[in-house]
Amino acid sequence: MPAHAVERAYQTIQRLQGGDIKNPQIGELLTESIRECQKFLDALERVNLKSKVPGKEYFAFGAEGKISRPVNKALYVGDLSGWNDLLDRLARNDFRRADATRITQAIYTAAISFCASIDLLKRGDQKTPGTFFEYLVGHLFAARLGVNPRTRLPVLNVDDLKTELPTDFVFDLGKGKPKFHLPVKTSTRERVIQVWAHQRVLDGVYGTGLFLGTPVILTETKNDVVKREVIEICLPDQWRLYQMHIAQLKRIYYLDVPAAYIALNQVFPRLHVRPFGEFFVEADTLS
Amino acid sequence: MPAHAVERAYQTIQRLQGGDIKNPQIGELLTESIRECQKFLDALERVNLKSKVPGKEYFAFGAEGKISRPVNKALYVGDLSGWNDLLDRLARNDFRRADATRITQAIYTAAISFCASIDLLKRGDQKTPGTFFEYLVGHLFAARLGVNPRTRLPVLNVDDLKTELPTDFVFDLGKGKPKFHLPVKTSTRERVIQVWAHQRVLDGVYGTGLFLGTPVILTETKNDVVKREVIEICLPDQWRLYQMHIAQLKRIYYLDVPAAYIALNQVFPRLHVRPFGEFFVEADTLS
Repeated sequence: MPAHAVERAYQTIQRLQGGDIKNPQIGELLTESIRECQKFLDALERVNLKSKVPGKEYFAFGAEGKISRPVNKALYVGDLSGWNDLLDRLARNDFRRADATRITQAIYTAAISFCASIDLLKRGDQKTPGTFFEYLVGHLFAARLGVNPRTRLPVLNVDDLKTELPTDFVFDLGKGKPKFHLPVKTSTRERVIQVWAHQRVLDGVYGTGLFLGTPVILTETKNDVVKREVIEICLPDQWRLYQMHIAQLKRIYYLDVPAAYIALNQVFPRLHVRPFGEFFVEADTLS
Repeated sequence: MPAHAVERAYQTIQRLQGGDIKNPQIGELLTESIRECQKFLDALERVNLKSKVPGKEYFAFGAEGKISRPVNKALYVGDLSGWNDLLDRLARNDFRRADATRITQAIYTAAISFCASIDLLKRGDQKTPGTFFEYLVGHLFAARLGVNPRTRLPVLNVDDLKTELPTDFVFDLGKGKPKFHLPVKTSTRERVIQVWAHQRVLDGVYGTGLFLGTPVILTETKNDVVKREVIEICLPDQWRLYQMHIAQLKRIYYLDVPAAYIALNQVFPRLHVRPFGEFFVEADTLS
């Protein structure tokens, strides 16, 4: 499949999303992109990878001697059934009896289909998967909350400090309701401290507790291409220090939740690390 | 000149520095590296660049159709006289009547000679210049303070949180004396928030005021290779927000101080942005 089939819908999203990322039309374009990617991937070989992550199995798509990033076998469903159901629920704004695990699988499949396709179609392109993942999560989050995000916030003007703070997505549900601070990353590594630092600035400028920090991250897997071994790169002790000393994040959502971070739900003071599917179920009660 | 002449001394530094970066032998190896670079650069064409930075002029070294990063004309002295004088003062630990501007020029010349050489000898290598600059600044800072840095700090053990915090260089002058937190970057862009966030964690873990945050940065210039125009990428309003809401840095040292940041010395609350040469003069009185 030529690269342009995957990229066509992607470019249309870029053009369209402007201020209206929650528009159902964006959802349709995402569906079209993902369908193209799955058509491409379905024809490819699946290469088993040696997983060094306890309890998780991974494969990669292979084409012309190249392999894609690792794909979690339990999360990759390989079709659009769960995804279509999710868009349908978003359209009806109805998440009663929704299955969070199935939603996580649907979004994981969508995201990893695009990323794995770009891995194989392009060379060393990290930016396109990152931007697509931002659109994907931005659309779903906005559709779930029913408001579009902002990416700049006014800062209280003192003297000559008249400025706007560039942020990740920020969602304002209106007076007396929570506001969400949504950084979106395909993986974090050592750059993650930025997420806590941005939360701290928001807390400082607007007051602590007003913005719920809810980063969404795809995965922390890393594939050793030579050994074909998958590992997860995690820094749980540092996360605890950041949460204690920089700012409090409300949730840290993952599509492929790293084992080392799941454990942080169990120790005091807790970090709430959850599969992203749970957001859709708990969104109305987060505060 | 073959790349290996420049890299030989560099690799010896990597091998030697281990825990003893203040060792005068490292200074000699740095001198050798810089001398090799200057020999290489002296034979090259100097290409004038159009400077969009008020009051500063830049050129680039050119070889085989490639050009190096921008070089500040007023700071590049092109010989080792100032550098040798600096090492001599460090050996004697005597900075009486030292000329801070001359020291800044000497270190700028040393750093940019190496970086520009690598720009021309390698392809897209950002890591080697960054690591060299870390050794260079680490050696000079350590030699000035008379102590070697650490790059890991123990964190108070609570429950099962027995961990070490990986940091940039940290210098401990001993009981009752200041400790320095020294991040070193060739440029910062949007990643700079990490510096404030690390300072915040140190303040939280050890108490505010114990560690003086003194990042050292080479430059914020960016060269538009097609237009051959030099600009500085600066975010002064965001820096003020970080300083007010995340943590307080004591100094921000630059070798090529951006005009937009110099202005931050004049507005309240002040950020103290200084040429790095001033550190050598003021080091004993910082607290």
